[in-house]
Amino acid sequence: MIHIGKAHEAECKISVTQYNPDKLIQQDNISINELDNFTHGEAMTWVNIDGLSNTDVIESIGIKFNIHPLTLEDILSTHQRPKLEEYGNYLYLVIKGVRSNHDKYLDIQYEQISILLMEHYVITFKERTDDIFNPICKRLENQKSSLRKMSGDYLTYAIVDIIVDEYFVVQDSLDNIIDPLEDSLSGNLSNDTFLTIQKLRRELIIMKRSISPLRELLTEIQHSNSDLLKEETLRFFSDVRDHVLRVLDSLESYRERIVAMHDIYLTSINNKINETMKILTIFASIFIPLTFISGIYGMNFEYMPELKWHWAYPVLWLIFIGITLALLAFFKKKKWF
Amino acid sequence: MIHIGKAHEAECKISVTQYNPDKLIQQDNISINELDNFTHGEAMTWVNIDGLSNTDVIESIGIKFNIHPLTLEDILSTHQRPKLEEYGNYLYLVIKGVRSNHDKYLDIQYEQISILLMEHYVITFKERTDDIFNPICKRLENQKSSLRKMSGDYLTYAIVDIIVDEYFVVQDSLDNIIDPLEDSLSGNLSNDTFLTIQKLRRELIIMKRSISPLRELLTEIQHSNSDLLKEETLRFFSDVRDHVLRVLDSLESYRERIVAMHDIYLTSINNKINETMKILTIFASIFIPLTFISGIYGMNFEYMPELKWHWAYPVLWLIFIGITLALLAFFKKKKWF
Amino acid sequence: MIHIGKAHEAECKISVTQYNPDKLIQQDNISINELDNFTHGEAMTWVNIDGLSNTDVIESIGIKFNIHPLTLEDILSTHQRPKLEEYGNYLYLVIKGVRSNHDKYLDIQYEQISILLMEHYVITFKERTDDIFNPICKRLENQKSSLRKMSGDYLTYAIVDIIVDEYFVVQDSLDNIIDPLEDSLSGNLSNDTFLTIQKLRRELIIMKRSISPLRELLTEIQHSNSDLLKEETLRFFSDVRDHVLRVLDSLESYRERIVAMHDIYLTSINNKINETMKILTIFASIFIPLTFISGIYGMNFEYMPELKWHWAYPVLWLIFIGITLALLAFFKKKKWF
Amino acid sequence: MIHIGKAHEAECKISVTQYNPDKLIQQDNISINELDNFTHGEAMTWVNIDGLSNTDVIESIGIKFNIHPLTLEDILSTHQRPKLEEYGNYLYLVIKGVRSNHDKYLDIQYEQISILLMEHYVITFKERTDDIFNPICKRLENQKSSLRKMSGDYLTYAIVDIIVDEYFVVQDSLDNIIDPLEDSLSGNLSNDTFLTIQKLRRELIIMKRSISPLRELLTEIQHSNSDLLKEETLRFFSDVRDHVLRVLDSLESYRERIVAMHDIYLTSINNKINETMKILTIFASIFIPLTFISGIYGMNFEYMPELKWHWAYPVLWLIFIGITLALLAFFKKKKWF
Amino acid sequence: MIHIGKAHEAECKISVTQYNPDKLIQQDNISINELDNFTHGEAMTWVNIDGLSNTDVIESIGIKFNIHPLTLEDILSTHQRPKLEEYGNYLYLVIKGVRSNHDKYLDIQYEQISILLMEHYVITFKERTDDIFNPICKRLENQKSSLRKMSGDYLTYAIVDIIVDEYFVVQDSLDNIIDPLEDSLSGNLSNDTFLTIQKLRRELIIMKRSISPLRELLTEIQHSNSDLLKEETLRFFSDVRDHVLRVLDSLESYRERIVAMHDIYLTSINNKINETMKILTIFASIFIPLTFISGIYGMNFEYMPELKWHWAYPVLWLIFIGITLALLAFFKKKKWF
Repeated sequence: MIHIGKAHEAECKISVTQYNPDKLIQQDNISINELDNFTHGEAMTWVNIDGLSNTDVIESIGIKFNIHPLTLEDILSTHQRPKLEEYGNYLYLVIKGVRSNHDKYLDIQYEQISILLMEHYVITFKERTDDIFNPICKRLENQKSSLRKMSGDYLTYAIVDIIVDEYFVVQDSLDNIIDPLEDSLSGNLSNDTFLTIQKLRRELIIMKRSISPLRELLTEIQHSNSDLLKEETLRFFSDVRDHVLRVLDSLESYRERIVAMHDIYLTSINNKINETMKILTIFASIFIPLTFISGIYGMNFEYMPELKWHWAYPVLWLIFIGITLALLAFFKKKKWF
Repeated sequence: MIHIGKAHEAECKISVTQYNPDKLIQQDNISINELDNFTHGEAMTWVNIDGLSNTDVIESIGIKFNIHPLTLEDILSTHQRPKLEEYGNYLYLVIKGVRSNHDKYLDIQYEQISILLMEHYVITFKERTDDIFNPICKRLENQKSSLRKMSGDYLTYAIVDIIVDEYFVVQDSLDNIIDPLEDSLSGNLSNDTFLTIQKLRRELIIMKRSISPLRELLTEIQHSNSDLLKEETLRFFSDVRDHVLRVLDSLESYRERIVAMHDIYLTSINNKINETMKILTIFASIFIPLTFISGIYGMNFEYMPELKWHWAYPVLWLIFIGITLALLAFFKKKKWF
Repeated sequence: MIHIGKAHEAECKISVTQYNPDKLIQQDNISINELDNFTHGEAMTWVNIDGLSNTDVIESIGIKFNIHPLTLEDILSTHQRPKLEEYGNYLYLVIKGVRSNHDKYLDIQYEQISILLMEHYVITFKERTDDIFNPICKRLENQKSSLRKMSGDYLTYAIVDIIVDEYFVVQDSLDNIIDPLEDSLSGNLSNDTFLTIQKLRRELIIMKRSISPLRELLTEIQHSNSDLLKEETLRFFSDVRDHVLRVLDSLESYRERIVAMHDIYLTSINNKINETMKILTIFASIFIPLTFISGIYGMNFEYMPELKWHWAYPVLWLIFIGITLALLAFFKKKKWF
Repeated sequence: MIHIGKAHEAECKISVTQYNPDKLIQQDNISINELDNFTHGEAMTWVNIDGLSNTDVIESIGIKFNIHPLTLEDILSTHQRPKLEEYGNYLYLVIKGVRSNHDKYLDIQYEQISILLMEHYVITFKERTDDIFNPICKRLENQKSSLRKMSGDYLTYAIVDIIVDEYFVVQDSLDNIIDPLEDSLSGNLSNDTFLTIQKLRRELIIMKRSISPLRELLTEIQHSNSDLLKEETLRFFSDVRDHVLRVLDSLESYRERIVAMHDIYLTSINNKINETMKILTIFASIFIPLTFISGIYGMNFEYMPELKWHWAYPVLWLIFIGITLALLAFFKKKKWF
Repeated sequence: MIHIGKAHEAECKISVTQYNPDKLIQQDNISINELDNFTHGEAMTWVNIDGLSNTDVIESIGIKFNIHPLTLEDILSTHQRPKLEEYGNYLYLVIKGVRSNHDKYLDIQYEQISILLMEHYVITFKERTDDIFNPICKRLENQKSSLRKMSGDYLTYAIVDIIVDEYFVVQDSLDNIIDPLEDSLSGNLSNDTFLTIQKLRRELIIMKRSISPLRELLTEIQHSNSDLLKEETLRFFSDVRDHVLRVLDSLESYRERIVAMHDIYLTSINNKINETMKILTIFASIFIPLTFISGIYGMNFEYMPELKWHWAYPVLWLIFIGITLALLAFFKKKKWF
């Protein structure tokens, strides 16, 4: 048993929540052995493990709950695709949690969350110690909450729902980047704009890869005939699926807009090349002929009649001005300025 | 219960229409409690709510008509994908209304419209107070109208149909922008053209996202076996579906044309760069050699035999003209002008 | 009832053909009332209406043959997608006729053709008065023709077949434009080439939109279990479907070739920019240094020893020629000419 | 009956091969009437017709073997898509033969081959007289060959297999063009490279159109429940299908590589434009300022103190050299050379 | 029987491993005849053949194990698509082994591996002699390994799994190339970067072609109802399938990133062209007018009043400096530097 993936400093932290409509027990930072205190009786037990670095803990949980070795391997290897697997005694879901660090734009972090749904237990494994499950804990504290009355599949729904809700937060932060970016493209182009476009493009590719298999997963849940999933909960999973579809629609339209932005950027640069060329052409086309003319009368031939004429110099100035005006008119007619 | 989405100033305005082949009662701006007056009896009742800002009203309607909490949540969150959901006692449809402000081109506004089809009631929720449903009210006033004779699913059809008809209006206004734009591309290119292309591209992405799930929705209606949808009405929904397919076909062909326009624009700019380059090259290639020659005879060496020759200066002019003509012929041969 | 679509000058012209293996009656330009003379008996009756401007005529036909209002609406609105609809007493087909005006290239005209297949009648509605159905009339005159022996579905097949055959004519005229266009791209590029490419691209988008739903339509005919379609005729419709697939394959490959042509055009322009740049660079790189040297000896310093040397001037000429040759060799080595 | 398609000079040549495990009769250039000599008895008879120009021959064969008029039409019109059609007494296959003339690269020729599989006969129609079927004739001469022992469907397989094998020959000749082309792109670009890329792109579009429907055809054979196809032969057709998939995979990857090559070509040209620009900029930036300075001291003002200084001229040379070195260092720092 | 494909120097090397939970016999480099010593009894026998050059050996194995000629042909022709074929007595799998030579980046080698799964035998054919199967041999040596306890389908799984694991190694080495490449694009562009992008693009096309049919293959295994595949092993194949999906997802995202990189590269070059143009324009626009002015006062007219003025020369210097500053301010305002 080895942990494959980016190692997070988080040590393995186990917390347990046991609840039924009447009672609620919440305990953090317990040891593996203390888990035995939570016999199920009539209650639902939610075991959450933060941090995957301690493989021994994962392994003992595997033995305790009779988890298939392939599942344990998948929990520990954090490069999984989101997927649903049905085993005899449990359902195994892998989902990617996505989180945007609001302060620094586009700093998106991914986390693999494994959920095991059993008859009396829900076990979740997270890579990091964060507060993403807090809202669920709060709702559990409320005795009237539907969570308290329903079984493990509803808790599973609540967990998936809260993970998917986080996608919308990330989507909002993407909106905050893409909308001003699009507007900025009509103005002055900086290299930073270009780098941001590229970074977004890359981030969207990764994000789509993390989220899109979830659609499939939730469709499979709809068609599953596992006893662990009750008819009445399926409607809620169907709702989550709609949310995922919305996020994917947005990602797809972001992608299209990013590609469009790239095209605009390329076109704008070509526009600028043309502008630069025009300035050069105007300067060169006007002054090179004039320089030639002045060069002629700088020649030292002994017999150049013009050199002796009294009005030659002022007349030449008129010619200079005439040529300049003619060329300016020519460029004006071409709408170059 | 919170309202998610752009807040519209519209306060919650309830209007009720009750009708059967014999009678028709229409009342605007009624309060929640007045709704109780409209017991169904043998009549069909259409309740329309304009504005979603007052969540209390929505919530009381939810309780009164026994609407599932997930549905109420979806009604209030205006970022829904168009979808159809079947509940025990009702069908729930979400559709996006699209409206083009004719005066200012490309100012397209979206509105989420929720429709609940029950046995004796049709309830519609709109984000804004506008007159989109007026034609239906007019048709209801006509006693011979088929609307009066048929049940709620036909009213639902009429509502969806009127929303989809609005898509064609928007499509026409897009036609009015795209056709002249395409023609203008062969002429002179302004930066405005480019910005309009980009704006169109972006708008089409958003519009497609709002409309395309409707195709799916209407296919689901065809395959639904809900008792609320009568066999004879399905043909009408199938007709609306054809309309949606037509709009989507058009959007797709607009998208292809916009992409083509972008390609044309980029190519045209490169064409212009080449034109600018040619002008510069012609000027520079002709006058730089001439300037060099005039520079030679501007040198101050003591022993330069040509300087003393009597015909040197006129001969040099002939050389100047000869070189110019030769180069012009060269560029002419290259078809540069 | 209103006619939606481009109004054609054609007034409503009704012609009737009644036939069975033994007899054939053909009458043009009859009035609505004269239609009553054609009771079916043992014969098949084909009613063709050219021109949709007179909505009264359409409406009376609708009443006479018991046509669903939605069908009448679709007949009159000429922006339909090709589709097949089964009603109780008839099948309704909408197809797009495509016609290329050979004289002027790429002047393609579209026409909506509606076909109603009933037990004893086939009714066709066309937007324009043209001779597209003439070959069918000719075949009907031949008593041994299979058309005479078979029922209305075979006539419907014959009509669809003749419309699809016209697609091949248009395809040929596209071939006549695309092939020489592709060849011309390796030679000199004119702006006309570019405009033709764009026009083709646009035309193909429209044409594909008009034809591609026909594939679907003909597949639906294969799977239809309407009594109006006999087993033995399905093979013929399957043959038409193969033709449509061939046309669509061609359109797709035209599209790919047009996109390729656009890429070639863009690349060729960049090639030309490079060529133009090279000419400028060669001229400038050779003559600018020479001009500088001649400028040096045009300076008026009192103490410039070279100016007094007797061989300075011819030596300088050698230097000029040497520099020119060296630079030409440099550009030659770079394979610039 | 008319022959549609490019007319080949080949006149209609009929050859017949009759075989069973015990005997083998092969006869070339026989007339239509001589065909009657070949009654089937216990033997399999393969009739091959080279050349479609003589429609009378085709028609008499049609009558003799009771072939459906639509099939005859398809045989004579050589623009068919590859397809499979099941008729009561026979299966009809159309396939495109592809042949590469090795001497001249990229000279690919297409030929339509029709195969009719009947209970005791296999009839093949080819557009041209070539030796593509020779290997089959050779195998038939070998009495131990499986061809001799098996029925007509196996012969059909052998014919299709030999046609598909020819695709690999073409694929190899494409490999011989594409691989060196790709390598040449990193070196010097000639216009020929560009033309070859374009020609390849066009050829691949046509080739894909000719081959890709074959996949569908062979899948249909697998699912066909015609009595003419024996269970044991299906495995062989499945093998041919794998070959076709391989060819199509290759064509698709060629297409991607050609598109990539086009992108590389465009990028390389832009790279070259930049290189050309750099040379021009270096020459112009160095010599234009120097020329200006020499121009200053070529002025004829009466009061220019520098002109009288004794060391002015050599000092100026130092300034010239200094400016040149500074600018070269500047361009060096920019990594321009 | 001929070997088609790149010939590897490897001669045919047969090694046999026979095992059951109790015993394990491993023998390398045995001859064909020695194979007869390995009667199956209660044990599983794995025959591995390295090198395909000796077709006689392959043929005798074919006869010995009763392998269909088509299978033997496919084993020897190393251009197969990965596929699964079910024969009466065995399953035939073809898979592509991929290996990256770590030292030289992007040196990826492909190898065709054929697996025949029979009731008591697993036979594998490899093109090359390498150590890819070593880990399986090691696991077999461990008596407690699940491999020892299970039948041939599990061994087949283990072989496929080890081949697919190698894909991840290649993926890692691609990561090591693509990530730094992407970062390098924002800095200085060398031609090497461009060549690496192209090489990657090409390699990804080939790799995708080799791997993607494996997804299909593993889906077919899931749906196969062969007796050779036990229910309990299918879960393991499903796990391999997830791995293949992950690799394909990665390849797809690499492809998208490579295309994005190409776009960035093209845009960057255009950016550089613009930069180069700006430098040229600044130099030329400043010095060409100045040179013209100095040229004026180098003219030799007799009557040029300025030439006599005492302060003319210093005043002209002020004019030179003024023009330079004005133009620099102009370019500064345009944000050119």
